[in-house]
Amino acid sequence: MPYPEQATGFQVDSAETWKTPTKRSFPLKPFGDYDVDIKVEACGICYSDIHTISGGWGAQNFPICVGHEIVGTAVRVGNRVTKIKQGERVGQGAQCFSCGECKQCKHGNENYCPVIKIDTYGDKYPGTDVTSSGGYANYTRAHENWVFPIPDGLKSEYAGPMLCAGLTSYSPLVRNGCGPGKKVGILGIGGIGHFGLIFAKALGAEVWAISRSRAKEADAKKLGADGFIATSEKDWEVPHKFSFDVVINTSSSYENFDLAKYLSMMDVHGKFISVGLPEEEGIVIKAQDLIPNGVSLSTSHIGNREEAFQMLKLAADKKLEPWIENVEINQKNLEDALQRMAKNDVRYRFCLVGHEKEFPE
Amino acid sequence: MPYPEQATGFQVDSAETWKTPTKRSFPLKPFGDYDVDIKVEACGICYSDIHTISGGWGAQNFPICVGHEIVGTAVRVGNRVTKIKQGERVGQGAQCFSCGECKQCKHGNENYCPVIKIDTYGDKYPGTDVTSSGGYANYTRAHENWVFPIPDGLKSEYAGPMLCAGLTSYSPLVRNGCGPGKKVGILGIGGIGHFGLIFAKALGAEVWAISRSRAKEADAKKLGADGFIATSEKDWEVPHKFSFDVVINTSSSYENFDLAKYLSMMDVHGKFISVGLPEEEGIVIKAQDLIPNGVSLSTSHIGNREEAFQMLKLAADKKLEPWIENVEINQKNLEDALQRMAKNDVRYRFCLVGHEKEFPE
Repeated sequence: MPYPEQATGFQVDSAETWKTPTKRSFPLKPFGDYDVDIKVEACGICYSDIHTISGGWGAQNFPICVGHEIVGTAVRVGNRVTKIKQGERVGQGAQCFSCGECKQCKHGNENYCPVIKIDTYGDKYPGTDVTSSGGYANYTRAHENWVFPIPDGLKSEYAGPMLCAGLTSYSPLVRNGCGPGKKVGILGIGGIGHFGLIFAKALGAEVWAISRSRAKEADAKKLGADGFIATSEKDWEVPHKFSFDVVINTSSSYENFDLAKYLSMMDVHGKFISVGLPEEEGIVIKAQDLIPNGVSLSTSHIGNREEAFQMLKLAADKKLEPWIENVEINQKNLEDALQRMAKNDVRYRFCLVGHEKEFPE
Repeated sequence: MPYPEQATGFQVDSAETWKTPTKRSFPLKPFGDYDVDIKVEACGICYSDIHTISGGWGAQNFPICVGHEIVGTAVRVGNRVTKIKQGERVGQGAQCFSCGECKQCKHGNENYCPVIKIDTYGDKYPGTDVTSSGGYANYTRAHENWVFPIPDGLKSEYAGPMLCAGLTSYSPLVRNGCGPGKKVGILGIGGIGHFGLIFAKALGAEVWAISRSRAKEADAKKLGADGFIATSEKDWEVPHKFSFDVVINTSSSYENFDLAKYLSMMDVHGKFISVGLPEEEGIVIKAQDLIPNGVSLSTSHIGNREEAFQMLKLAADKKLEPWIENVEINQKNLEDALQRMAKNDVRYRFCLVGHEKEFPE
């Protein structure tokens, strides 16, 4: 099986030119004993890609090749790799390395590793000049701990987007007890939110979609919502006071965001978990808004390896179907898809496919 | 046993005159079938008393007789009272009524009852003109659900302050898993914080006191702290990154409060729980500060009946000794104590005693 000396893909050179990525070759990190090379066949387009290349999250290590919802074939595995077999269909999400030795890594929190955490794209590999790179390319390289076998029967263009958007909703759902008897809200029906509806329903909860207007109500119900809340309507929160056990907030902006009303819907010690990473400066919290129900506010950062396995298995076993619009990867299609993504003009996820055609060997 | 037609105590008439309460008689609520009349023998001075009478928490139902850390004798019980016996030594904390019927009341969250929650002082009783009143007086009246038998062997001046300050720290500690193997921080060494140190230690955790300077270090260690953090020192948070399971934040001001540094000390999904209710407008939270460890921010509102029992039993069984400065209740002593309390000039709690002398029958 051929394997890469370098990758070829679409790089963005600066925040000013994010709408016109350039196709070129660039180095991968030096191949290590625990590394896996993935020949990419599908890669979702995540809103993180837009935040990153457009500079919304601040300075980046340009040029950068993004994409962190990757599925492909493990074409090479390092000498010490035990978790992945050469030739296996595998996935890679938003992270590609963690120390593996610290308390957090050893207790299922490698996605919060405080020692060294390398993102799939945009981070410098320690001791090199190489910037980590993602799946808008023919190949990626990652530590085996962050490469996941994909179950048979789950389409690659479904599995890819699950590895960031999916896991970002799945992990906080399961860590906060989503299941039968629980009332769960999914705030924001975009890429992450649509996975939230699918997984919360599959886990057995009573699921409510929460959106500004009713434009996505029919979609949300097809995706698994039992109920729908439109926050542009008067007194929308009133019927739900003290009732939600968990709300996953997927919105990535605090503009016109009346947090106190959302919090008033939570049951005592309910969990309001934000998974979006807004570009704004923050939001004012008043203790007075938290006191009535002792609600907890938190965030969540993707998920761990075990949760990735559980999620993929759940999706395969229950034949869950995310709503994916496939995009054949090439210069024009990629530019169009990025711009549509930036306007949230997709229901509910783009997945780049056809890498073999765009990057022939 | 004589029982009251009305109470006599010290009322504050306006926020402007909070430093000079007036001794007079005033009505209690109409006596109901589930009510208990308490002849007061001890009442702690809580910072809530100051927030309330000085107007810091906004408009109040003046005139108002505060005090919600009450111990005394149950001199009369209503026809349907089953939880309290006449003649028993009992306590009353910050709340005196909850609906008893809602989901929250029926599941041990009566301290968060969304239907009707009446504070021990300052709330109008529904259908009456009577403002609830507290223990700066000879008598109080409360629903039996909010009256707690006091175990033998626990001094009244210890038990009183436990019913607000103590329970406010005890409930979030036990609800968030404080115990052996857990690293727990108590932020702010005042009335609530000193109870936090005592209880967290008694529950078996590794306990750290967190204060601005080292002025209270010796006290904190006597109270039970295993370690001490002074936040005026450079890089104070660095040695503790990703290590705290629980921090109880008892500070009641956000001035110069660098929340991000505190949050950086929390282990993954650690619980940062604020129990103070600042008078300011709020604090800006950035998702970026919550993401690295998926920390949760929450609040807690006193505690439930069962927790009050557990706490009092723990204190009696382990002979826990809060640091209490007794104050014989009378006009001058009360005025002095209120003003010292407003300056936090007490280590660590005043308790008013000698009610029988000040209010002879």
